[in-house]
Amino acid sequence: MLKMYDLAGAEADRRFSPYCWRIKLALAHKGLAAESIPWRFTEKDVIAFSGQGLVPVLLDGEREIHDSWTIAEYLEENYPERPSLFGGASGKALSLFHASWANGFLQPALMKFVVLDIWKHVDAKDKAYFRDSREKRLGKTLEAAVANRDSEVVGFRESLLPLRLALRAQPFLGGARPLYADYALFGSFQWCRCISDFQLLAPDDPIYAWRGRMLDLYDGRAGKAKGYPV
Amino acid sequence: MLKMYDLAGAEADRRFSPYCWRIKLALAHKGLAAESIPWRFTEKDVIAFSGQGLVPVLLDGEREIHDSWTIAEYLEENYPERPSLFGGASGKALSLFHASWANGFLQPALMKFVVLDIWKHVDAKDKAYFRDSREKRLGKTLEAAVANRDSEVVGFRESLLPLRLALRAQPFLGGARPLYADYALFGSFQWCRCISDFQLLAPDDPIYAWRGRMLDLYDGRAGKAKGYPV
Repeated sequence: MLKMYDLAGAEADRRFSPYCWRIKLALAHKGLAAESIPWRFTEKDVIAFSGQGLVPVLLDGEREIHDSWTIAEYLEENYPERPSLFGGASGKALSLFHASWANGFLQPALMKFVVLDIWKHVDAKDKAYFRDSREKRLGKTLEAAVANRDSEVVGFRESLLPLRLALRAQPFLGGARPLYADYALFGSFQWCRCISDFQLLAPDDPIYAWRGRMLDLYDGRAGKAKGYPV
Repeated sequence: MLKMYDLAGAEADRRFSPYCWRIKLALAHKGLAAESIPWRFTEKDVIAFSGQGLVPVLLDGEREIHDSWTIAEYLEENYPERPSLFGGASGKALSLFHASWANGFLQPALMKFVVLDIWKHVDAKDKAYFRDSREKRLGKTLEAAVANRDSEVVGFRESLLPLRLALRAQPFLGGARPLYADYALFGSFQWCRCISDFQLLAPDDPIYAWRGRMLDLYDGRAGKAKGYPV
């Protein structure tokens, strides 16, 4: 039985980590069940065996795997008879750009809209850690970071043009069906949905429709998770 | 024999269209030779048979194909025994995001650094057309568009983080070898190199090294083309 450490908020069933969502959908894609272990930011000792302090951490029997991209690679290599996450070696290499765009562009961009809402939902024992570490990273208070989000969302939506262009042409980044590239980007939108009611996307945006399709996958794996309506 | 209409500047051998470069490298990838026909922006009548006014336009016997993505699809489908541009159906679907990032982010971002340099190199009969159409699109004069480029290049380099992250991990976006995704992005950098001496990338950037590898491909197909040192 697979086990996965998954970030939880003050409520144990509020699971909002974008990187964990990538893997929860990758597991569903492969038809693999995993026992989910709720974990909080400051429980570094609980996952110290992995040699680092971030989730997701996956346990497969005796094996420990961490870092979402590494876990996706692991699942692809070790469960090759299941549906492919990448569509082949070239697809895997190409998907690294999608994951990098999510890590290097989408996550920092979204952080400026939802960081205060995250703080409101994290466990009591995580609040000081979360505020301190994020305010250091952002160079301002959480309140200041989101102060102009109503106006800044206009430019953010424009900056999603590359994603919009791709999703105008096909239902998923992977084509007719989703691939890991879809999970890599969707994880960031799901992160926001789980902890914030801020409207990031306009309803007539092809990205909005794609997010809806992603929420419906695998019997509503992401859509049924605790969060806010989008 | 394949033929391709290729944008030329005042000098017939200055070929700078980013979209044409995508296809020139895709043809080289497939080991296909094509007769190159120089074309200028205002020679709309010359390619009117294609039902539109932009290059690249490819002729393959009786068939006419235009739009760089459509041409890449055509080459993949009609020359399947040659090296693949996408690495399979999933790779093709995934590559649409790379092309969309080049179209929707990279091209507009780079335009603000090189648009005046393009104007300086276009054919005399194209100068008024180019200035008028681009100033309308940019909402300012070409001179104003590039006025602050020395300071704006700092933020531009930062905004390339997603590409940098991917190229830190592997030599090409396609993995160990280049795919169409590489040509889609490289076309934009080659566009700049052909008409501008402005230094877009820092020499210690993994993207700089990748561009160097791209310039060397296929016996220096892009690197030997008329342009400026990078």
